[in-house]
Amino acid sequence: MHGAGNDYVYVDCTKTSIENAGAVAKFVSDRHFGIGSDGLILIKPSDKADFFMEMYNSDGSRAQMCGNGIRCVAKYVYDYRLTDKKELAIDTLAGIKYIQLNVDPATDRVVSVRVNMGSPILKASDIPVNISGKDIEGITKDTIRDAVVSETLTVAGRDYQVTCVSMGNPHCVVFMDDDFDMDNFRIEEIGPLFENHEVFPERTNTEFVKVIDKNNLLMRVWERGAGETLACGTGCCASLVAAVLNGFAEDEAVLHVLGGKLNISWNRKENTVYMEGPAVTVFDGDIDISGIK
Amino acid sequence: MHGAGNDYVYVDCTKTSIENAGAVAKFVSDRHFGIGSDGLILIKPSDKADFFMEMYNSDGSRAQMCGNGIRCVAKYVYDYRLTDKKELAIDTLAGIKYIQLNVDPATDRVVSVRVNMGSPILKASDIPVNISGKDIEGITKDTIRDAVVSETLTVAGRDYQVTCVSMGNPHCVVFMDDDFDMDNFRIEEIGPLFENHEVFPERTNTEFVKVIDKNNLLMRVWERGAGETLACGTGCCASLVAAVLNGFAEDEAVLHVLGGKLNISWNRKENTVYMEGPAVTVFDGDIDISGIK
Repeated sequence: MHGAGNDYVYVDCTKTSIENAGAVAKFVSDRHFGIGSDGLILIKPSDKADFFMEMYNSDGSRAQMCGNGIRCVAKYVYDYRLTDKKELAIDTLAGIKYIQLNVDPATDRVVSVRVNMGSPILKASDIPVNISGKDIEGITKDTIRDAVVSETLTVAGRDYQVTCVSMGNPHCVVFMDDDFDMDNFRIEEIGPLFENHEVFPERTNTEFVKVIDKNNLLMRVWERGAGETLACGTGCCASLVAAVLNGFAEDEAVLHVLGGKLNISWNRKENTVYMEGPAVTVFDGDIDISGIK
Repeated sequence: MHGAGNDYVYVDCTKTSIENAGAVAKFVSDRHFGIGSDGLILIKPSDKADFFMEMYNSDGSRAQMCGNGIRCVAKYVYDYRLTDKKELAIDTLAGIKYIQLNVDPATDRVVSVRVNMGSPILKASDIPVNISGKDIEGITKDTIRDAVVSETLTVAGRDYQVTCVSMGNPHCVVFMDDDFDMDNFRIEEIGPLFENHEVFPERTNTEFVKVIDKNNLLMRVWERGAGETLACGTGCCASLVAAVLNGFAEDEAVLHVLGGKLNISWNRKENTVYMEGPAVTVFDGDIDISGIK
């Protein structure tokens, strides 16, 4: 399955289990000798929520949560009739996520999924980022303390205006000029310089965003430890929040990324960010993993 | 399925057909939005042979034949009981290929496949290569005419001793010194300089080979139009023939490539090259291609 091109292999582990999931993740992720994917997601029972999402990267390491992945988990459990609920609570290593399914009545299959992504973290020391921030009034009910909004960061001798947001993981959002060539810029050169810049003690994800209009943002993302990806759910949320803080966008906008489109909204009254996007089943089948060590 | 890491999606088209196979090949080959493969292979009925192998590259273009692919076709038709023969004739755009199956009696499944790869073409103008060759006696029954064996070719200012062989497609084989670092050399830099060298009017595949002993050759291959690949069946055959011509190998040897091992033998009496190698089913399943245009 994929969500905006972010593809994982999903396994129903509500009745069976996989012992050596890390090794299996590495195997199935391999394009040539396995299936080919960004990793493996196991759908497990949960005491605290409807399901537990157990996630592994393509290198076999454990991952916490993935916005594109959790939409596919929600589609999986509904389409394969593991549940008939259209509102779900899915537990992850990053806590319980609350989800609404958008079901096509003609096919009774999930076409898109809305995820409550929680509150943005804007205090510099909590992101974390070592840039002095400012207090901001009038955006949310409470005063936003020590927020890094359009502050200058020098990267490879050039000054950028950056806005920093954590959605559980750190993001540095950079708005590009109207004449900037989003298609052809070399993100693989500039991305690592942001990622490993000394002001980010835990490194950072970096979003390069061009404002099309107040409801449409064009984004390319350099993910910490992963490089450029087709879509980054938390990156889209961070970019919308950053755009609102800078007065570039309304509270709801479409994020246009390489892998497709995600609808992001920031309910400022309750200070919650929602992400809605596609979930697609590409194929299903059987694989023998008995030989994987 | 894959043969030494060269992976395709295989479809039984003996009873159904796929109209827009080029577009389907492009779709299924995509790692993120499709399945992820080197292309698509359709197994069709044949008037002239047991089956016809119809092959598409990942860009949707038609391909002629693939040594790693045809082994998987043979495994598919036996394992899925489309035939009970252990000797098969499979028609391709490069002619009919004759195949022997090696079946594990415990599972009644094919584990490896031996393919008659035909006669090597050694005459310079037939390969084609614009280097003057020499006549060679005593290798095959007939005198080998105008063969390019260990001739000097200057590439990027450096002299290489090259041996040229066609197995239906042109190959330039270069034997490297014992102290050459096969793991870390930059094939992506030197490969294109061979591929597009003026002496190869139809460009060339290039094999960089290190002789381990008379029955073991280590090979990396730069494929014309494809770059470095994990395994190239015709490249392994060409390398073994070149090694015999240079006195570096016996008539049968194991070719160690990035994707695994292939056994190559040159029956010099009948002047036929045989390739034996693995064929592996990774997974099977269902995919909806009704929306592919």
